[in-house]
Amino acid sequence: MADRPNAVVAMRPDIVDLVLPPALRARLDTLADVSAGPPLTDWSGADLATTDVLLTGWGCPPLDTALLDRAPRLAAVLHAAGTVKGHVGPEVWQRGIAVSSAADANAAPVIEFTLATVWLAARRTLGAAAGYGTGHYPGYRERRGADGAVVGVIGASRIGRGVIARLLAAPAGFHVLLADPYVSAAEAAALGVELVDPDELCHRSDIVTVHAPDLPETHHLLDARRLRLLQDGAAVINTARGRLLDTQALTEQCATGRVEAYLDVTDPEPLPPEHPLRALPNVLITPHIAGCQGTEVQRLGAYAVDELERWISGRPLLGAIRAEQLARIA
Amino acid sequence: MADRPNAVVAMRPDIVDLVLPPALRARLDTLADVSAGPPLTDWSGADLATTDVLLTGWGCPPLDTALLDRAPRLAAVLHAAGTVKGHVGPEVWQRGIAVSSAADANAAPVIEFTLATVWLAARRTLGAAAGYGTGHYPGYRERRGADGAVVGVIGASRIGRGVIARLLAAPAGFHVLLADPYVSAAEAAALGVELVDPDELCHRSDIVTVHAPDLPETHHLLDARRLRLLQDGAAVINTARGRLLDTQALTEQCATGRVEAYLDVTDPEPLPPEHPLRALPNVLITPHIAGCQGTEVQRLGAYAVDELERWISGRPLLGAIRAEQLARIA
Repeated sequence: MADRPNAVVAMRPDIVDLVLPPALRARLDTLADVSAGPPLTDWSGADLATTDVLLTGWGCPPLDTALLDRAPRLAAVLHAAGTVKGHVGPEVWQRGIAVSSAADANAAPVIEFTLATVWLAARRTLGAAAGYGTGHYPGYRERRGADGAVVGVIGASRIGRGVIARLLAAPAGFHVLLADPYVSAAEAAALGVELVDPDELCHRSDIVTVHAPDLPETHHLLDARRLRLLQDGAAVINTARGRLLDTQALTEQCATGRVEAYLDVTDPEPLPPEHPLRALPNVLITPHIAGCQGTEVQRLGAYAVDELERWISGRPLLGAIRAEQLARIA
Repeated sequence: MADRPNAVVAMRPDIVDLVLPPALRARLDTLADVSAGPPLTDWSGADLATTDVLLTGWGCPPLDTALLDRAPRLAAVLHAAGTVKGHVGPEVWQRGIAVSSAADANAAPVIEFTLATVWLAARRTLGAAAGYGTGHYPGYRERRGADGAVVGVIGASRIGRGVIARLLAAPAGFHVLLADPYVSAAEAAALGVELVDPDELCHRSDIVTVHAPDLPETHHLLDARRLRLLQDGAAVINTARGRLLDTQALTEQCATGRVEAYLDVTDPEPLPPEHPLRALPNVLITPHIAGCQGTEVQRLGAYAVDELERWISGRPLLGAIRAEQLARIA
């Protein structure tokens, strides 16, 4: 590669100033010769003959074979967002192109959002608010606190591990159960969690929070049978992907009032306006707001620019994604 | 005092096992001779002639002059709950009786709850959920993140200071404004906050959180005029007392959609079922759930028992309340 690579930015033009605000864009310009003009959202007119690096983001079109044929020098795709599944496929790695994702940077707000909902769930906030809305003021014995609550984490993903670390550091003394088929008993012990199967996790948890990737084998991981295993008064949190839960079955459990839910993702997403889950007072549905947004989006750009600096100086990429990981990650 | 004092427990009988679960009750019994029978909720039939210590809690009746005349040895009132205003008045201190509150122990869950709502408020969670409920999926530019958000803290109370410390330790880089007439510029600088008056706080904050005591001079501290100073898209959090806000004025601001609110306390409390604030989708009203409840209640008992141990051994009470503080604290 050149000491000073040629770079192309490919993402939605209307977000580029959020991802790369002026100070960050100036830093990028000190590292690489960046193609002039708005960021690309399609490859049709692009001249990529001398491009060494793609700095990609939301709205980047897929890097298909035709594009790769036109970019013979392309050596790195640095993604200023989370998942690379939308634009990177096996042919990218087959050509020896390095791939990096800013999923680490995107994880931090999701972890914070999850922890916030765990604290609310530990007090049965939505159930309490729903009951209060109908005139019920809960007595001392109905009230739930966080101390000693059992939190079931599904998936020791990047975000799942972050949530686990924060739960175990909290003064409430949470007991953390983990279900993850790729985690060994020894690794679970090192994480400080009790490794259980998903059924036991559902049966024993006061709060279940989902952090698994959306894969064929995780589709409806929380299906009707497992959701019935939840205790009365349990809470479900989903900041991962809607398909991990059976929406209809969750609706039925929440409609009885015995389960409350904090859902930042749904299946389908968005949920149709008339979906009965929307009408339940003990369910909080938000439009996929847990990840980087607003002022946080520049974390993604900063991560990608940091990766570029590492790549230029020959250091390992911190957010490197390997082809064989694609089937197991979000 | 005797090395082994005589103690009487005065609180609601239906909560005593939450405040003093068996292990804690056993520890209490190693420290003092505790009167047999259920805890007291009225003084009429009580023999307090040899009582050295009252271990009080929710539901303890007022320690009036008649009661104090019947308790000549009473030397300490250790409250296993927050405010002592319900049962302790000037005549208690006039007799040289030490007073302690477990407000420190009650503060921790309130601080956690406040932080959880700050994280939600930073993303405009209620507004996003409300909009989504009517079919609106927010675009990138409408979305708000936590990074660099301005949080206005009203009141550097025990809880206010805890919230400030947590906000400043968070990776989001919150900028914290403080309004408190008892805090000097030097003390504000030591706390790491910018000291402003309440008007400026309302005008500049993305999120306003109230931690002032309920006093005549704090009544409607956030009145109609100050609530109008809030920016479009601001959020208000109240985990303190309902009277600090003008409920009608807050209702008007939230009804326009420009302000969202997280209210664990209201004025009146509970709010009448037909109150229009209840019907707003960008307002979350909870029935005073932020303080110790459920499994957390034993923190209050443990704090009071720790105080008893300190008192017996002649060490200072950590939760000591002095008469002159009563007019400034919650």
